[in-house]
Amino acid sequence: MMAGRTFGSDNHAGVHPAVLAAITAANSGDAVAYGDDDLTRAAVARLSAVAGARSGYLVFNGTGANMLALSLLLRPYEAVICAESSHLNVDECGAPERVLGCKLLAVPAPDGKLTPDRIADRLSGWGDEHRVQPRVVQIAQATELGTCYSLAELQQLRDFSRAHGLLTYLDGARIANAAAHLGCSLADLAAHADVLSFGGTKNGALGVEAVLVMTEGLDAGAPYHRKQLMQLASKMRFLAAQVDALLEGDRWLTTARHANAMASRLGTALAGVAGVRLAYPVQSNGVFTEVSRRLAHRLVQEWSIQEWSHTADGERSVVRWMTAFDTTAEEVASVVAGVRRAAGQSAATAEPWQR
Amino acid sequence: MMAGRTFGSDNHAGVHPAVLAAITAANSGDAVAYGDDDLTRAAVARLSAVAGARSGYLVFNGTGANMLALSLLLRPYEAVICAESSHLNVDECGAPERVLGCKLLAVPAPDGKLTPDRIADRLSGWGDEHRVQPRVVQIAQATELGTCYSLAELQQLRDFSRAHGLLTYLDGARIANAAAHLGCSLADLAAHADVLSFGGTKNGALGVEAVLVMTEGLDAGAPYHRKQLMQLASKMRFLAAQVDALLEGDRWLTTARHANAMASRLGTALAGVAGVRLAYPVQSNGVFTEVSRRLAHRLVQEWSIQEWSHTADGERSVVRWMTAFDTTAEEVASVVAGVRRAAGQSAATAEPWQR
Amino acid sequence: MMAGRTFGSDNHAGVHPAVLAAITAANSGDAVAYGDDDLTRAAVARLSAVAGARSGYLVFNGTGANMLALSLLLRPYEAVICAESSHLNVDECGAPERVLGCKLLAVPAPDGKLTPDRIADRLSGWGDEHRVQPRVVQIAQATELGTCYSLAELQQLRDFSRAHGLLTYLDGARIANAAAHLGCSLADLAAHADVLSFGGTKNGALGVEAVLVMTEGLDAGAPYHRKQLMQLASKMRFLAAQVDALLEGDRWLTTARHANAMASRLGTALAGVAGVRLAYPVQSNGVFTEVSRRLAHRLVQEWSIQEWSHTADGERSVVRWMTAFDTTAEEVASVVAGVRRAAGQSAATAEPWQR
Amino acid sequence: MMAGRTFGSDNHAGVHPAVLAAITAANSGDAVAYGDDDLTRAAVARLSAVAGARSGYLVFNGTGANMLALSLLLRPYEAVICAESSHLNVDECGAPERVLGCKLLAVPAPDGKLTPDRIADRLSGWGDEHRVQPRVVQIAQATELGTCYSLAELQQLRDFSRAHGLLTYLDGARIANAAAHLGCSLADLAAHADVLSFGGTKNGALGVEAVLVMTEGLDAGAPYHRKQLMQLASKMRFLAAQVDALLEGDRWLTTARHANAMASRLGTALAGVAGVRLAYPVQSNGVFTEVSRRLAHRLVQEWSIQEWSHTADGERSVVRWMTAFDTTAEEVASVVAGVRRAAGQSAATAEPWQR
Repeated sequence: MMAGRTFGSDNHAGVHPAVLAAITAANSGDAVAYGDDDLTRAAVARLSAVAGARSGYLVFNGTGANMLALSLLLRPYEAVICAESSHLNVDECGAPERVLGCKLLAVPAPDGKLTPDRIADRLSGWGDEHRVQPRVVQIAQATELGTCYSLAELQQLRDFSRAHGLLTYLDGARIANAAAHLGCSLADLAAHADVLSFGGTKNGALGVEAVLVMTEGLDAGAPYHRKQLMQLASKMRFLAAQVDALLEGDRWLTTARHANAMASRLGTALAGVAGVRLAYPVQSNGVFTEVSRRLAHRLVQEWSIQEWSHTADGERSVVRWMTAFDTTAEEVASVVAGVRRAAGQSAATAEPWQR
Repeated sequence: MMAGRTFGSDNHAGVHPAVLAAITAANSGDAVAYGDDDLTRAAVARLSAVAGARSGYLVFNGTGANMLALSLLLRPYEAVICAESSHLNVDECGAPERVLGCKLLAVPAPDGKLTPDRIADRLSGWGDEHRVQPRVVQIAQATELGTCYSLAELQQLRDFSRAHGLLTYLDGARIANAAAHLGCSLADLAAHADVLSFGGTKNGALGVEAVLVMTEGLDAGAPYHRKQLMQLASKMRFLAAQVDALLEGDRWLTTARHANAMASRLGTALAGVAGVRLAYPVQSNGVFTEVSRRLAHRLVQEWSIQEWSHTADGERSVVRWMTAFDTTAEEVASVVAGVRRAAGQSAATAEPWQR
Repeated sequence: MMAGRTFGSDNHAGVHPAVLAAITAANSGDAVAYGDDDLTRAAVARLSAVAGARSGYLVFNGTGANMLALSLLLRPYEAVICAESSHLNVDECGAPERVLGCKLLAVPAPDGKLTPDRIADRLSGWGDEHRVQPRVVQIAQATELGTCYSLAELQQLRDFSRAHGLLTYLDGARIANAAAHLGCSLADLAAHADVLSFGGTKNGALGVEAVLVMTEGLDAGAPYHRKQLMQLASKMRFLAAQVDALLEGDRWLTTARHANAMASRLGTALAGVAGVRLAYPVQSNGVFTEVSRRLAHRLVQEWSIQEWSHTADGERSVVRWMTAFDTTAEEVASVVAGVRRAAGQSAATAEPWQR
Repeated sequence: MMAGRTFGSDNHAGVHPAVLAAITAANSGDAVAYGDDDLTRAAVARLSAVAGARSGYLVFNGTGANMLALSLLLRPYEAVICAESSHLNVDECGAPERVLGCKLLAVPAPDGKLTPDRIADRLSGWGDEHRVQPRVVQIAQATELGTCYSLAELQQLRDFSRAHGLLTYLDGARIANAAAHLGCSLADLAAHADVLSFGGTKNGALGVEAVLVMTEGLDAGAPYHRKQLMQLASKMRFLAAQVDALLEGDRWLTTARHANAMASRLGTALAGVAGVRLAYPVQSNGVFTEVSRRLAHRLVQEWSIQEWSHTADGERSVVRWMTAFDTTAEEVASVVAGVRRAAGQSAATAEPWQR
């Protein structure tokens, strides 16, 4: 593997030892395939209970979770309102369009968060047969920019959506980080969705996500959709074991809290480096910093991080730093020192906001 | 898990200890996500070398492998010729139709195997804009009925297909069992395909399959197709580690040989039980036996096996027994004894072929 | 155009003068586009009233009608049971698979007609997530082989379908010919369907078909589906005018009766020619005759007809003769004389059934 | 029909008498269906020659033309760059997403026109498997906002696209109006595209559009795509006859010139009315005027025109006026007088730009 911490993605981390232990423990004797086994039934029931969900479906990855969830909510002529910067819109290689055949109505959202007003802008065309019909509001919690909706904001969106006949899909690839940030339960978040995903992979699992259905009548076809969408694991018990290990002793929350704390520490430290400022508030395990393009180039090389976007004038970049369940304070200190060093060498002049 | 051997599916088995050990070993430090890591590059290169393939792509499961492979071969108006009994046609819940939008031209094949003549029956309509245009011949090796094509048969199909402008996709969910049965190499089989899949899950992996591209020009878009088709693993190294463990010391072949040997033993023994006869020759790790419906019912209950099909008169059933990498001779003996007992109690009269 | 009657297809015929007159009459002043005009509203209401339908949607052609109708009935994992020989299965170039993403469960039906038993064969797999779920029974009336279901047969299929939770789609590309043959009303036929199509093009229109919805709750999304499926005509009034002209004085029935009568006359005469026999009873405007391949070849050349299929031994062919609203008795006499001449020269030996 | 001129859409107009005469003339005797007839061959050859195209395909409507054209250009993971305001993006009810499964990368374009810079903004993500791969630049000529690209602008876009490996699709639903405005030939415009559509319906036809292929190798599958996409007319000769009538004596250009002249006259006159100003330059047969919402409401009621958009502050609307091949100077004068009257009554205060 790699010599050290990369900060490039929470997917660069490995598997939490407890998750690996659970996989190993599950490897005993035969179990009926495709989820018709006791371990799967128990893990799904346990997760559903924690979320207050009617039913749950384990899948392989985040794209699979997004596609399965939306399949439960959409007819062919219905559309999804989402943030322009959302993973769904940017980083699924057009899976929603190809696999679901649905149009995304992307909304500019500077901080990655939808608001009733931003949604309202996309609601024209109701009843016009020439227009797709908005049906689902997709909310990522945490967002792709590391920000979180407050519970009050979620409630406001939910009220607005219901008042306009819209369903809510909560993309929870990092829902654990959001719960940790808000100090709330999974059920507190799930209550604002019709369907949500629960992400394990970015939070210490080897690879498992769950689709959870909150609202009656939406899950009738879920098993068939999952199979068609290539998300039905043969040896399901090994996905279930991962979920189980994450739920055990609220490990999903503990690991996320740790990752968030490391991000917070990193963000605070980086914000104090000359030539670096935070692009968004740190509300999960992602830190987005705005730096000169020259510095960005150097940091990307050194830390395997991603250059996320550019400022409109093209002179500065936003780079993303992700922490994980196993990031240490020493690693954070090390990267901060490295950035300080690089920034000192890169920055000849004061930054715009420092002038 | 379950108390004993089920014989219901090779997917009921767990993970080979060496595969689990490899996963554990891979869990050290960070690795770049989505396969851009050394372990993945090495495992894919190794597998490609063994198969003689130009490139390879790891995916989660068999449905994913089938869909990715066919995506590389088809335009929207082109069709796949396959056996009526094929997994692709029967057991993918219509994924080819939904995900690829393609029509399957299913061909009756009593033993699960296509022949040039059977394919030829589906080639009418060339150049007629009202008809889908046949483009791919899908061959499962081993077939869904446990039979194998000989190398000569594969060559004959390949020659025929090439002569008619058809590409070959070899569904290798159980290709290891076929190689073990024929005593040939992976490359020997792969050489007859334009694209093939290499199945790990049914052969001791936790969950991994590979799509291997043999023919130049077919893999240009493969990474995008894989992502869209929800088959791009975040922590890819743990899929790669499984492939690596299967390749190590030809473990993939050893495990398959063992499973085949157990199936052979089981088949021979069951064929000697009164009221039981083999429906197809045993050429991999599946044993298909024809029994009375009454006996079938009892066996299904007792051994978690599947009732596969019925005879045309509806009076007898074919039930399927699968062995796995970890099936033991004692378990085989135990099931044979159990069937003998059950058959003795079920069968009051002589079977049709014993009269 | 061509010099004479071709008998190759009812689509080879032109437009009924009354239909053309209605188009011309509709060309007066402006009319709101996309069907929001008085002429369209009136024609659709009139057709719906005749059929006893809740709502109706005009589309361009038969493929469009089939796709729109099925879009109203299917979820992505649901399948359509249809006859192997159906237009839907054979002659739509895979549109159901590409456009709807649905699997067709094709059933052998020697005379083109489904029966409860044939449907029942395709109902296994209920509740199994690996299998598509049968949802719609597609009945063509008249069938692609020129045969018609009796009202009693339709009722039997309807009862069976309802008892098994299946919806009925009646493909009525030649429903006028069926009504004419059975001496029943459009409503008599429509009553056996949840959704049906009403074909105009093969019955004297320039180009118009209608999708009619009989069952409550199925038409909610119809306008959006029609638009997405590229079937929303800009200048809809000219489609509506055609429907109007066909309904005027039951013209749709009169024209179909005439075409049927010509087919009946042709069938009777051809059956009397040595070396020719009817492959199916003549129950609409199609005549299918079995002849030697040598004779078939000659007839195809001479009359632009289609070679439909071959006998299993490959020695004889079925060729199709279609009559239209404007076929004359003289043209029938002429073709019969021609066939008699050709048959005399082609047939050296007695036919199998004459020996 | 309606009592008078609506100005709501060029689709509200009827059929040009010469087109109707051609349809009538084509209605003589039999013709082989699906376009295999002399009239179709001749009309398509004639249109292709005029455009300098390799091949052409007649379809029913604009949505069909757009879908067929893009089907020839895209693989499943490839995307289309288009203007946010384009018909393709706004008014196809998500057909590109459902039917093609492709993502549209919509670009803000205040005047409806793409520029190399605007396209360049959408080219990030090349080679990244998480992103759709830009492949086609869709240019509407004239645009949905009534503006036209100059030949120099087209050349600049073409050069830019070629330099970046992008194909060009020119949506020519109103290409006649563009040619008339620019004083150029169809071939002049077509030369800047790989594939284009030629719109007949908005220019006096009853209903016909053509897809024209300029670049070698792109039309191989066109007949199959057309059939699958429900755009293959049974009685094709009646589509061909319309094309023929439009080509006869350059009627397509004459009619478009007339419509443009009426729009120009209307635009000039409306721009002189207090409280009304042009939102975009009048460069085809559409006039977009910005007025107070109160006046907009009244005009929409009175003239069946469309309220197109609102100013950002929500206080003013843009309303669209369309002229057609048969709009008369008297009708223009009448509508101008009506607007003047309405504006006098609606406008109490000076407009923002008049203060």
